[in-house]
Amino acid sequence: MGEMSQSNRVGGMKNIYIIGIGLIGGSLALNIKKLNPDAVIYGIDNNAEHLEEALSLNIIDAKAKIDNIVNADLVVLSIPVDSSVIELPKILDNISDDTLVIDVGSTKTDICNVVANHPKRRNFLATHPISGTEFSGPKAAFLELFQNKTNIICEVEKTAFKLQQKAIELFVNIGMRIRYMNPEAHDKHIAYMSHLSHISSFMLGKTVIDKEKNERDIFDMAGSGFESTVRLAKSSPEMWTPIFKQNKTNVIETLEDYIKNLTQFKELIQRDDFDAVFKEMKNTNHIKQILKGIN
Amino acid sequence: MGEMSQSNRVGGMKNIYIIGIGLIGGSLALNIKKLNPDAVIYGIDNNAEHLEEALSLNIIDAKAKIDNIVNADLVVLSIPVDSSVIELPKILDNISDDTLVIDVGSTKTDICNVVANHPKRRNFLATHPISGTEFSGPKAAFLELFQNKTNIICEVEKTAFKLQQKAIELFVNIGMRIRYMNPEAHDKHIAYMSHLSHISSFMLGKTVIDKEKNERDIFDMAGSGFESTVRLAKSSPEMWTPIFKQNKTNVIETLEDYIKNLTQFKELIQRDDFDAVFKEMKNTNHIKQILKGIN
Repeated sequence: MGEMSQSNRVGGMKNIYIIGIGLIGGSLALNIKKLNPDAVIYGIDNNAEHLEEALSLNIIDAKAKIDNIVNADLVVLSIPVDSSVIELPKILDNISDDTLVIDVGSTKTDICNVVANHPKRRNFLATHPISGTEFSGPKAAFLELFQNKTNIICEVEKTAFKLQQKAIELFVNIGMRIRYMNPEAHDKHIAYMSHLSHISSFMLGKTVIDKEKNERDIFDMAGSGFESTVRLAKSSPEMWTPIFKQNKTNVIETLEDYIKNLTQFKELIQRDDFDAVFKEMKNTNHIKQILKGIN
Repeated sequence: MGEMSQSNRVGGMKNIYIIGIGLIGGSLALNIKKLNPDAVIYGIDNNAEHLEEALSLNIIDAKAKIDNIVNADLVVLSIPVDSSVIELPKILDNISDDTLVIDVGSTKTDICNVVANHPKRRNFLATHPISGTEFSGPKAAFLELFQNKTNIICEVEKTAFKLQQKAIELFVNIGMRIRYMNPEAHDKHIAYMSHLSHISSFMLGKTVIDKEKNERDIFDMAGSGFESTVRLAKSSPEMWTPIFKQNKTNVIETLEDYIKNLTQFKELIQRDDFDAVFKEMKNTNHIKQILKGIN
């Protein structure tokens, strides 16, 4: 990248609008600013406090309103997925022919469907950066969030060549690897690889809190194992409820599989079939090899 | 601790026998050696390869056999809990009146019961250092494992005063906080705080592997969330099977609660009751405050 000019490292984009200046939007803003200090980052957010925070943390250069996006080179839509499907068509109505609009939501079928026949469909790229933490809001944003993470891009062929190019330059320059999938496959697989993890973690947290609520100090017994499995139960319900709603069918399927496996494991213990209990765990140890190389 | 002599920092104990030189046993060995370089650490392990590894990693000073423990000041029993209940009475048969024997297993009722009437009961202290990783064997051992972690001690009143004192000196000097419980309460609560996490993680791993086994490269979609919830599925089945066996009744109860909560969450999604889905997650977010201060 030595020969690349700074503006090329973000695809020559200068006026950047981030709608939803939280963990993902904020971290993207930090990266764009680092790649191109000349870029002007405008923040748009329903949450006035978050917007002030983003400004004082220098994540954004200025606050803006949705009407201002007419001069945008890039619009990033990083809000809950139920709001995205409402806002995206309106955004496309108001941009220039050269504006790139990306979303970063955890579901891809509904958002692709809602703009399938929009005259500006070519200006939109559906993406899912698989990167996050259990924290939210601009304070949670950090520069390294996307390093060595995967970005799933859907229906790339429906986006204008030049805008595909700009988006991919940006993602590669912030350290991401790109994978292409269709929206339905994305939503089916991400239900297993991400949505189920969140529910398993939330329900683990609930189970333990319900049981132990009257026990003082019992959480002194929590070790790093519990912490690790329950970490995602700190995630934002505002963000996750619409994800489960949009991906309802797939999420229900993963939950049925998971409950079936848990029930079977419980029955093995009840029947004192500890050879089978051992075997189940031994087979699943295989996850070690599978996960190797993710980080 | 400036005025403490080195030998006092491990309760004046010199001949140390570690039976089972894995993650916990090995990490204890490293700590004892650091606190008292004059201590001689003997390793005993069924696994000849682990024993060689422990020796070449300088975790132990020498290999030993179970018959050698007659001169032991401290015997640490850090083997799977089904073996512990067999070995502990034999160990107590063979030690001197001044020897301290501790176990570090994840279940406490059976081990306390098995020596309840042993003439050397006063030489034994039942402990559970709540510290571990998903890795096992001597290579997994490290000095900092116990820093700021909790050690649960059971039936402390049944151990001789002087030996209580030596054990507590050791645990405090390796950075642990001590909590006292009875074995039944320990096993009931640890089922929720630890054993359930392991099963939820193993079954999450199984569910995803079963579903995705024919999908090439699908694990590129795994993010840090999946990694975190599935981490414990890398744990040793050799260690965990006997834990679930000894703690069968409590583990089944936790699994029934967990399955009930998952089923209810699934039904809320099926009924499109997303207000309730939101509320469930919001209530569980409370885990943030609960876990604060664990690390």
